[in-house]
Amino acid sequence: MTSPLLEQLIDAFRVLPGVGPKSAQRMAYHVLERERAGGQRLADALGAAIEKVGHCVRCRDFSETEVCGTCASASRDAHLLCAVESPADRLAIEQATGFRGLYFILQGRLSPLDGIGPRELGLDTLAARLAEGEVQELIIATNPTVEGEATAHYLAQLARQHAVRPTRLAHGVPLGGELEYVDRGTLSHAFGGRSEMAD
Amino acid sequence: MTSPLLEQLIDAFRVLPGVGPKSAQRMAYHVLERERAGGQRLADALGAAIEKVGHCVRCRDFSETEVCGTCASASRDAHLLCAVESPADRLAIEQATGFRGLYFILQGRLSPLDGIGPRELGLDTLAARLAEGEVQELIIATNPTVEGEATAHYLAQLARQHAVRPTRLAHGVPLGGELEYVDRGTLSHAFGGRSEMAD
Repeated sequence: MTSPLLEQLIDAFRVLPGVGPKSAQRMAYHVLERERAGGQRLADALGAAIEKVGHCVRCRDFSETEVCGTCASASRDAHLLCAVESPADRLAIEQATGFRGLYFILQGRLSPLDGIGPRELGLDTLAARLAEGEVQELIIATNPTVEGEATAHYLAQLARQHAVRPTRLAHGVPLGGELEYVDRGTLSHAFGGRSEMAD
Repeated sequence: MTSPLLEQLIDAFRVLPGVGPKSAQRMAYHVLERERAGGQRLADALGAAIEKVGHCVRCRDFSETEVCGTCASASRDAHLLCAVESPADRLAIEQATGFRGLYFILQGRLSPLDGIGPRELGLDTLAARLAEGEVQELIIATNPTVEGEATAHYLAQLARQHAVRPTRLAHGVPLGGELEYVDRGTLSHAFGGRSEMAD
C-alpha cells in the first residue's frame, strides 16, 4: 500500500457490519476516486450522530433529545405500549402497520449466558412505566426465536403483575409463502391458530 | 424515524458502493449501538484521507506525498513499467507477483462514449515518461474487457512510438478452473496459446 492514511481508512471501514477486507478496500477506493464530497458528508454525519444521538429516557430508542419525538407526541395513544428488541424492529412495525401507540425498545433480549438480564433490557424502567397505570395493553413484539420467546414470557408476567393485558404478535404462514416450504413449527402453529372465515 | 441526525447518517452511508437503504440502516444502528469508538475512528480516517490523499505525479496512484513511496524507491527496477486501470489492480499485482518494477495507474480505461480519452487517463504523462528513455518494457495489465483491450492496443502503439517493448498479461484457463465451465473466448485463446511442456 502506498499511503498509510489509505490503509487506516480501509482498516476503519471494517467496523461496519458485513464489511470484510475486500469490501473495505473497495469502499475506500470508491470514496477517494469518485465520492470525496459524499465521503466528507459521511464523516460529518458519523461524528455528529456519535456525539449527539443518545437514548430516549422513556422508550430507549435512539434520540437526540431526552424524550424522543414519538414519546413526546400528544397524538399517540399512551394506553398501548409495544415492546420490541431493536430500533430496526420498531421502524419495521411503524412502517408496516397503522400502530398509533407508543414503543419500548429493549435493545436486546434476555440471554443469561451473555450476561443480559432484566436490568440490561431496562425492565426496571418498563416496570415503573407499567406501574404508572396509563398503559392498558403491552404488545410484545420480540422476535420468534428461543430467546425472544423467553423474553416475551418474562414481559407477559411483568405486565400481569401490573394488571396490564399482555398480547403477542400472531404467528403463522407468511403472506405469499407456500405451505410446502413453511417450517413445521410455523405450520403447526398456524394450523392450531386457525380462525373462522368471514362470509 | 425519531432522530434527524440518524436519518442523515443512514442517508450518508448510501454513498458507499453496494450499500442500499437496508444495509445503510443496519450500519448506522450497528455503529450507534455497538461501535461508537470504531465509528469515530472511521469518521476521522475518512476526513483525513479525503483531505490529504492525492495522486502521485509519477504513477497517478493514491499518495499523501507528491511522489509515492514506490516511485521514490531506489530498489525498484525503473526499466519495467506496468500499466493498470486502478489502484486495486496495482495492489492485486503487487500482492500476487514478485514484480519489482514500477507502475502507472490509468485511473480508468478508454471509453469515448463516456468522454474518457487519452487525456483523462494521463497518457500525455505516460508518453513523456516513455520518452525519458529509461523504460524498456511496458507491461500492459488492463482488464480483458472490450474497453480494456482497446486501451491495451492504444498503449502498445504509444510504447512502440517510443521504442519501448509492449507486453500483455497472458490469457488462458485460470488455475483451478474446469475446462467445462471456462467461456469459449478464453478457451480458444488458451488453446491457441498452448506451450511445450517441460520434461
